[in-house]
Amino acid sequence: MIEVALFGAGRIGKIHAGNLTKQAGVRLKYVVDVHAESAQALAQLHGAAAGSVEAALADPAIKAVVIASSTDTHSDLILRAAAAGKAIFCEKPVDLTIERARACAAAVEEAGVLCMIGFQRRFDPTFSALKERILAGEIGSPEMLVVTSRDPSPPPVSYIKVSGGVFKDMLIHDFDVFRWILDDEAVSVYATGSCLVDPAIGAAGDLDSTVVTIRTRLGRLCQINTTRRAAYGYDQRFEVLGSAGMLQAGNHKPTEVVSHTAANVSEDKPENFFLERYRVAYANEIAHFFDALANGTALRTTVQDGLKALELAEAAMLSWRENRIVMLEGSRS
Amino acid sequence: MIEVALFGAGRIGKIHAGNLTKQAGVRLKYVVDVHAESAQALAQLHGAAAGSVEAALADPAIKAVVIASSTDTHSDLILRAAAAGKAIFCEKPVDLTIERARACAAAVEEAGVLCMIGFQRRFDPTFSALKERILAGEIGSPEMLVVTSRDPSPPPVSYIKVSGGVFKDMLIHDFDVFRWILDDEAVSVYATGSCLVDPAIGAAGDLDSTVVTIRTRLGRLCQINTTRRAAYGYDQRFEVLGSAGMLQAGNHKPTEVVSHTAANVSEDKPENFFLERYRVAYANEIAHFFDALANGTALRTTVQDGLKALELAEAAMLSWRENRIVMLEGSRS
Amino acid sequence: MIEVALFGAGRIGKIHAGNLTKQAGVRLKYVVDVHAESAQALAQLHGAAAGSVEAALADPAIKAVVIASSTDTHSDLILRAAAAGKAIFCEKPVDLTIERARACAAAVEEAGVLCMIGFQRRFDPTFSALKERILAGEIGSPEMLVVTSRDPSPPPVSYIKVSGGVFKDMLIHDFDVFRWILDDEAVSVYATGSCLVDPAIGAAGDLDSTVVTIRTRLGRLCQINTTRRAAYGYDQRFEVLGSAGMLQAGNHKPTEVVSHTAANVSEDKPENFFLERYRVAYANEIAHFFDALANGTALRTTVQDGLKALELAEAAMLSWRENRIVMLEGSRS
Amino acid sequence: MIEVALFGAGRIGKIHAGNLTKQAGVRLKYVVDVHAESAQALAQLHGAAAGSVEAALADPAIKAVVIASSTDTHSDLILRAAAAGKAIFCEKPVDLTIERARACAAAVEEAGVLCMIGFQRRFDPTFSALKERILAGEIGSPEMLVVTSRDPSPPPVSYIKVSGGVFKDMLIHDFDVFRWILDDEAVSVYATGSCLVDPAIGAAGDLDSTVVTIRTRLGRLCQINTTRRAAYGYDQRFEVLGSAGMLQAGNHKPTEVVSHTAANVSEDKPENFFLERYRVAYANEIAHFFDALANGTALRTTVQDGLKALELAEAAMLSWRENRIVMLEGSRS
Repeated sequence: MIEVALFGAGRIGKIHAGNLTKQAGVRLKYVVDVHAESAQALAQLHGAAAGSVEAALADPAIKAVVIASSTDTHSDLILRAAAAGKAIFCEKPVDLTIERARACAAAVEEAGVLCMIGFQRRFDPTFSALKERILAGEIGSPEMLVVTSRDPSPPPVSYIKVSGGVFKDMLIHDFDVFRWILDDEAVSVYATGSCLVDPAIGAAGDLDSTVVTIRTRLGRLCQINTTRRAAYGYDQRFEVLGSAGMLQAGNHKPTEVVSHTAANVSEDKPENFFLERYRVAYANEIAHFFDALANGTALRTTVQDGLKALELAEAAMLSWRENRIVMLEGSRS
Repeated sequence: MIEVALFGAGRIGKIHAGNLTKQAGVRLKYVVDVHAESAQALAQLHGAAAGSVEAALADPAIKAVVIASSTDTHSDLILRAAAAGKAIFCEKPVDLTIERARACAAAVEEAGVLCMIGFQRRFDPTFSALKERILAGEIGSPEMLVVTSRDPSPPPVSYIKVSGGVFKDMLIHDFDVFRWILDDEAVSVYATGSCLVDPAIGAAGDLDSTVVTIRTRLGRLCQINTTRRAAYGYDQRFEVLGSAGMLQAGNHKPTEVVSHTAANVSEDKPENFFLERYRVAYANEIAHFFDALANGTALRTTVQDGLKALELAEAAMLSWRENRIVMLEGSRS
Repeated sequence: MIEVALFGAGRIGKIHAGNLTKQAGVRLKYVVDVHAESAQALAQLHGAAAGSVEAALADPAIKAVVIASSTDTHSDLILRAAAAGKAIFCEKPVDLTIERARACAAAVEEAGVLCMIGFQRRFDPTFSALKERILAGEIGSPEMLVVTSRDPSPPPVSYIKVSGGVFKDMLIHDFDVFRWILDDEAVSVYATGSCLVDPAIGAAGDLDSTVVTIRTRLGRLCQINTTRRAAYGYDQRFEVLGSAGMLQAGNHKPTEVVSHTAANVSEDKPENFFLERYRVAYANEIAHFFDALANGTALRTTVQDGLKALELAEAAMLSWRENRIVMLEGSRS
Repeated sequence: MIEVALFGAGRIGKIHAGNLTKQAGVRLKYVVDVHAESAQALAQLHGAAAGSVEAALADPAIKAVVIASSTDTHSDLILRAAAAGKAIFCEKPVDLTIERARACAAAVEEAGVLCMIGFQRRFDPTFSALKERILAGEIGSPEMLVVTSRDPSPPPVSYIKVSGGVFKDMLIHDFDVFRWILDDEAVSVYATGSCLVDPAIGAAGDLDSTVVTIRTRLGRLCQINTTRRAAYGYDQRFEVLGSAGMLQAGNHKPTEVVSHTAANVSEDKPENFFLERYRVAYANEIAHFFDALANGTALRTTVQDGLKALELAEAAMLSWRENRIVMLEGSRS
């Protein structure tokens, strides 16, 4: 039996709690949250106890921690969990600064513990099937990736202000998709954008609409477009052009009803937002983490992936702020 | 806490076991199966005990039974469970004979117990959304229903022989869909068919390809087409024409990957078979049953629905065998 | 140079005039219509002359006639044109009575002239591609055909009264599609229907909503559903199930615009009505007729096809009126 | 009667010849081509005469010229036709140099003649319907445009060498689509690309795979991706995100056949290449030109549009070659 401590009892913490308690041989022992009542309620739902970080990390029965607390706590918890020898599942991003993210990567390596970053898109049925089909050679050598990543509506400006900016908060997923799908590293990043949705976002020093271009070592090309507000819902698509064809990952829909009326022929809008769209992906990633922990299989996303995605986000932010193309020599390591 | 006995530990029994143990306030107490090891294994998986029909029905703690055993045991178990005052969830069909099905309906009424028949299509997200949109008036008054119901491959002939024939075994679901979607009763049934897939099915006195036409009291029209073998998979669609438009229920797919190659543009085949296609529907119907039991809400499918569908299956069989249109005066009750 | 006389300067006559004047080596010489001004106007547009049936048939330069006049004139014109040794293109139906249609077939055979019936669906790009793919073996042996044939709105009741009824007027095309696609002849026909769109249609002794089932010599099955009023437009689809797969012919749309809004994801309704939907088919069938005439290639639809479709329409009407299954022994010839 | 001279009897010249002879009140009088036999053959097909540029421009009966000759002759012919007071329809691009394109624009303005550039995409049924729906407010204010523009296979390297490069030869259309759809002018252009299809293209100093980003005065964003080789055919899509929704322009297909097999569910690949894809657009643009000429209506694309698109192509080339973001202050005129 693998006993687990969960840090964070918010929206995403609840998802992980529900999923990890479904794993055979896994037991949720502690739920930790700065908001004691939330911790208590979630713990009770799953037969666990509310606890503290200290207690959880000091408990030798705890083999793994799941970090789903606020972004500013991630790196600290990773460092402490690594020091305590726990296997770590941590939501993205590792941290908002590259320095601390690197420190986390170093600590994880030194401790020799598992550390998986929650890039759940890699575990989505559609996205992962597409990746497997690339690997199977269906479209030959990948040449170009177009990522469409649009939220239905922006978060509160209060959140925007502590989010690290749209590149670290939202595009971090798309940067990971880029690395995963094209299987290559960036040599240049160009990013620009606008504030078209809400001037308050601009006043907070951020963008709500962005376009990013990445060129890789092999000359592969990637374009990403994002917005904080797609009136029609959560739009999560990408397409990969290869030498022998193209694969597209389309949106998921709640139902397969098609309506024919005097107005038009219509179908459902995409799944509402990430909790619905990536419901299966969240379950799959947790299953993968505990499978790796129990059986020693390789993790499909690591703290290194978290670091690389953060470097791309940093480069994009720099490109936008300084209105220049950012070359990534350092990433050739 | 509602304690439950499950009769049948086969493929569909396992599905129900998994779903009912996820209901809050519900506990699986007994698993009963003629094959003792299967009962034992499934019981163990869910912290229940293998038991006998007698023990389960005699246990006053048991408030409900779930009948997922072979078809020939359904009516007997319904009668005994009703007599014991248990709420009943039973897989389709109620029985292969109308007489016994009527006896079940009478017994259920007399005992005043809940009895739900597992017409899971009514709980499918796509199908139920479509029904709600008809009720909301999106296509005006329904006029015509076309049902496409095709299995990927035929069952063994040994099963065919005890199945009651394709109309009672396979189309029973489509007859229920007809009644549910058009919200009307049949006045005439015409059915014909062929044996195009496997001569052994014909030798067993059955059809593998059928077409059925139903006309209702309000003059609404329904066409059903079925086959035991669709080379491309499990095809479960229907469309409803109304005075103001049309609604179509399409197939569900495993992923939303679209592939463009030199050959064509392709997407996934439909979900493989009923366990995949109706996975959510199975969960929803069990939740509905226990919700009705706990909260007194009305059941959306009852033993009467089971009886009506069986009457249509019987009429279709008669139509085919005697090569005539069968008028259903009796159904006007 | 093949010189041609056109009988009928109405909606469909204009289409044929436009198409035949585009054929290399073909010249429209006469336009004949009971309404002299219409004949005059259409003739002038294409550099032809208004004329009479007598003059056109007596002119030895006329090698072919295109009959697009009202239904009640078809058989008379076919008989006269055959007697005059002209090649004949005639709109469906050959006639409203089987006797006269048979007389036409006999006259055509005796005269040894070409006689093509305007079943334009066989020349539609989608439908004909589908047929070719069946012939290429893509879905193995055809087993089942489902035809959806729906008009956007009913014609005036005055037209209904002289139309010969929905089976001869509207389904005649679907009966031809049935024979063409399944490549087999009917042994039984069952038809029923309702008057759900306009009671005046019922008062005129006709149906506006029909369902037909046909079984063939090889045991293949066909279901046809029609309505005179599909609120969403002209719906012309069919699908063929074969032993190795299924081919569907979908509707054509005016544009490929897809709209995502807060309401739904929508695309265009189907092409408005037959003139738009079968625009290319009309051009193709005329090209085919003159190609056959010039080069001696075989006609893809003949007066025999017109007769067979009419026999099916007659059987359907009988089935509906007498509420019985009609057996077609005679068609085994 | 408007009499016309056509310069260029190649692939696209033939298309224009066929379309312009279908216009009421328009007559093709001269066909001019450096290859005399081609001119002769095309002229004969349409009842015109082969002629010289001099003769055509000197003939006062000639009211309009259609320039479909090789790119290097465009500007010279525009200048001479303008001087001769002829209305001008010219294929893209105006010229490969901005200086000569500006000279053309000036000459056209001075002569006061009509000059339409053949950006046929603006006349495509799907693209123009989409534009009208933006104008009708369906998606609110446009914010972002993603253009996918992929050829099925590269032209010969001999053509590449004289093409002016991929930005002027291929993306010129996409730059015009950008200006037309977003209804705004560029302030910055970033372009990069790779040679992934054929090293000979790179050796010729060109790219075969490109990605371009444009930011407009209003902060609108555009991303374009192109390749010279899409294994699945000619891919011509774009999508526009607006404040209230999104509109997508999808590919056109030859037929609406859908195939379900044991492998997958498939439909047709896109129309093969530009002659098929833009067949209707070519007809529409010629009709538009002669309508403007006859009725004085405003041209929808002018030599100014040709110049603006060329400026964007030049900026993109500069951006790629110098690996920098190109600011377009000058375009604010």
